[in-house]
Amino acid sequence: MKFSPLLNELIQALTCLPGVGNKSAQRMAFHLLERNRKGAIDLSNMLHNAMEHIHHCKRCRTFTEDELCEICRHPEREASGLLCIVESPQDVLAIEQTLSYKGQYFVLMGHLSPIDGVGPEEIGLNELETRFSAGGIDEVILATNPTVEGEATAHYIAQLCAAHNVEASRIAHGVPVGGELEYIDGNTLTHAFSGRRKL
Amino acid sequence: MKFSPLLNELIQALTCLPGVGNKSAQRMAFHLLERNRKGAIDLSNMLHNAMEHIHHCKRCRTFTEDELCEICRHPEREASGLLCIVESPQDVLAIEQTLSYKGQYFVLMGHLSPIDGVGPEEIGLNELETRFSAGGIDEVILATNPTVEGEATAHYIAQLCAAHNVEASRIAHGVPVGGELEYIDGNTLTHAFSGRRKL
Ligand SMILES: [Zn+2]
Ligand SMILES: [Zn+2]
Repeated sequence: MKFSPLLNELIQALTCLPGVGNKSAQRMAFHLLERNRKGAIDLSNMLHNAMEHIHHCKRCRTFTEDELCEICRHPEREASGLLCIVESPQDVLAIEQTLSYKGQYFVLMGHLSPIDGVGPEEIGLNELETRFSAGGIDEVILATNPTVEGEATAHYIAQLCAAHNVEASRIAHGVPVGGELEYIDGNTLTHAFSGRRKL
Repeated sequence: MKFSPLLNELIQALTCLPGVGNKSAQRMAFHLLERNRKGAIDLSNMLHNAMEHIHHCKRCRTFTEDELCEICRHPEREASGLLCIVESPQDVLAIEQTLSYKGQYFVLMGHLSPIDGVGPEEIGLNELETRFSAGGIDEVILATNPTVEGEATAHYIAQLCAAHNVEASRIAHGVPVGGELEYIDGNTLTHAFSGRRKL
């Protein structure tokens, strides 16, 4: 950008957003300057605010600006005795959007990955054990991703549950609702068969 | 986002970016919080800075943080006697990237559109006439878009040029280099034929 070094810097800064390359960043910068300076100032303030105030919930490790997130503060959810374990806050969001789960969560913020130096402590499993010891959890639902690492992490946590006499279950894998069999990968189909239920 | 109203507000604010819907905004917000808080703070500062300091060049109307943009301050470009007229700062950028034009620019920040109340004054044509009267411009290159409005705007400015005894030319329309004839629309092909040159 010969005509404005500052505009150049803005375009550069916008590429910190995932999926935004130089070309999209240019389009964004020009759009904001030409048509939405107020939106840009609002975004600037929100970014600052969010990065300063959003941290991890002391109890479930999801993102929140409070000490405990709204889900953890909910008495009915605590009373449910259910604890769903997921890899990321996005997973909490996806499950919440189904409106069908009314228990609590524990967010690993990752999965076990010994090769990357991510062990049980890095994904908060000592905190999880402290929580098991405190009591009040009847069942753990392992909702880690159906990947090799997610399965290994679920398996590891299932053993912790057994050691603490907490029931553990794994979410079902199978053919997505509305999916067509011919487009489903073999691994999923195998899961769908082995997880079949009597009608 | 039940667990963090502030995160919800950040996601909302990110949708002010063009091409960013709720789903992408979510992905961006989580990415920044999890992996690039420094990038988010830098972006916040750059947005603020850019919106506060970037305005229109007094001479060519493109974006700049100075009174005159770097192109307008360049003595060789002034000496060229060439003035290229474009609709937007992005067009300046596209032309600059070709490295083949070494004259000055005038940015309309739009095109004539009587139906939307955009007349000659709104696209700075009075400033352009003042510039014609000041002298020093030998040729105007009309590089507005090859749309109905862009053509009408080019035609209108060509008349102003004639009134001020300034030569005016229109950029060539035709088959893009590397384009395949069968995929080119008929209008462009017509232009390509009528604009043919002897070899
Ligand atoms: Zn929580
Ligand atoms: Zn300028």
